[in-house]
Amino acid sequence: MRIEIWSDVVCPWCYIGKRRLETALARFPHRDEVEIVWRSYQLDPAAPTEPTETASEMLARKYRMTPAQAAEAQGRVSALAAEEGMRWRHEDSPHANTLDAHRLLHLAAEEGRQGELKEALLDAYFGQARNVADHAVLREVATGVGLDAARVDEVLAGREFEAEVEADVDQAAAYGASGVPFYVVDRKYGVSGAQPVEVFSQVLEKAWSDAHPVLETVGGGEDACGPDGCAI
Amino acid sequence: MRIEIWSDVVCPWCYIGKRRLETALARFPHRDEVEIVWRSYQLDPAAPTEPTETASEMLARKYRMTPAQAAEAQGRVSALAAEEGMRWRHEDSPHANTLDAHRLLHLAAEEGRQGELKEALLDAYFGQARNVADHAVLREVATGVGLDAARVDEVLAGREFEAEVEADVDQAAAYGASGVPFYVVDRKYGVSGAQPVEVFSQVLEKAWSDAHPVLETVGGGEDACGPDGCAI
Repeated sequence: MRIEIWSDVVCPWCYIGKRRLETALARFPHRDEVEIVWRSYQLDPAAPTEPTETASEMLARKYRMTPAQAAEAQGRVSALAAEEGMRWRHEDSPHANTLDAHRLLHLAAEEGRQGELKEALLDAYFGQARNVADHAVLREVATGVGLDAARVDEVLAGREFEAEVEADVDQAAAYGASGVPFYVVDRKYGVSGAQPVEVFSQVLEKAWSDAHPVLETVGGGEDACGPDGCAI
Repeated sequence: MRIEIWSDVVCPWCYIGKRRLETALARFPHRDEVEIVWRSYQLDPAAPTEPTETASEMLARKYRMTPAQAAEAQGRVSALAAEEGMRWRHEDSPHANTLDAHRLLHLAAEEGRQGELKEALLDAYFGQARNVADHAVLREVATGVGLDAARVDEVLAGREFEAEVEADVDQAAAYGASGVPFYVVDRKYGVSGAQPVEVFSQVLEKAWSDAHPVLETVGGGEDACGPDGCAI
């Protein structure tokens, strides 16, 4: 079974949804046969690589709220993050571009470390309010989960994996996703948004039984031949 | 899509069922993406390689009928064969062992000629009443569909593919098949017996739509982030 997850590094519901799916997976008896693939999605492709404001300030400006109002608006998400026991400094997180982070996630997939890098990037952004567009930060986080430093530098210096990021974004659009997180199980079932654990559990069970069918047989052997002869 | 068909070379309903499936496939828009695999099944593993009676005589003896009664009992099958426009001399077909024929069908699968050999063997037995246990007959039929004569001789001289024949028979039992023809589509749908064309058509459609699902999505994007921000 394969779960593809479209998600952005700076998307709070993506991080909350990640914990909920992890809870559902921990309860799923066939969890060892589930592969997770992280797909790229950029909420704001125009976000700067050198941030000038926090995500909250950007929000307040965009929606003409005071910083206090913007912080309050994010209160429900922060409360849920607290419930999940996550460290959460989102109020200080910078409004930053994620293209390079996604390119490194594709590199990590090649090296079998994508899950580790995804978690580390989300924690860097939400738990530590770091600038995930900054190459020094990206380098530290990526090598911290075991990626080869020379390859990380090489990817960051060029445009490698840009086409892969774009292909992911296009695929999300093809699936009709208008936001993230967006989950696709076995290219058959979609889940839009950070749904409750129970919803993830149901989809996992459904996809599993689809992938492991019991043979449904039509016909009871009339017009057939067996060891005792043929139907006549 | 893959259709596995358990069938014996001396099974009249298998031949009739083959024509019916072919008709369903001819009407199926995705027929070019369907692969057929012929699986081995022996109705009578104890049948002789040097026949001493016809299949009808064997039946008459086994069920204490007169030859005329046995011929009459096969009347419905013969009528259906005539309807399908098949040449049919089944009343003269010998009661013969099919192990070697099945071994050659496995060889033919390796050489990409299995469909051709299956048809040729069925016609040799039902259309020409030939002894499909005889090595000279088997050699002629197999090379007639393009199999390499040296490989055919090599296989016939030894026990090659016996394990494959046995594995096929075991798999049929595992699926709960008690006779043939027995069809399995994508290891998901079974068809037992030479069902009407419409039944094959329905199963083909069902398997196709299973294999080419439209994404079913749960959730409408609540608790998600999009280009205009995050749900709060």
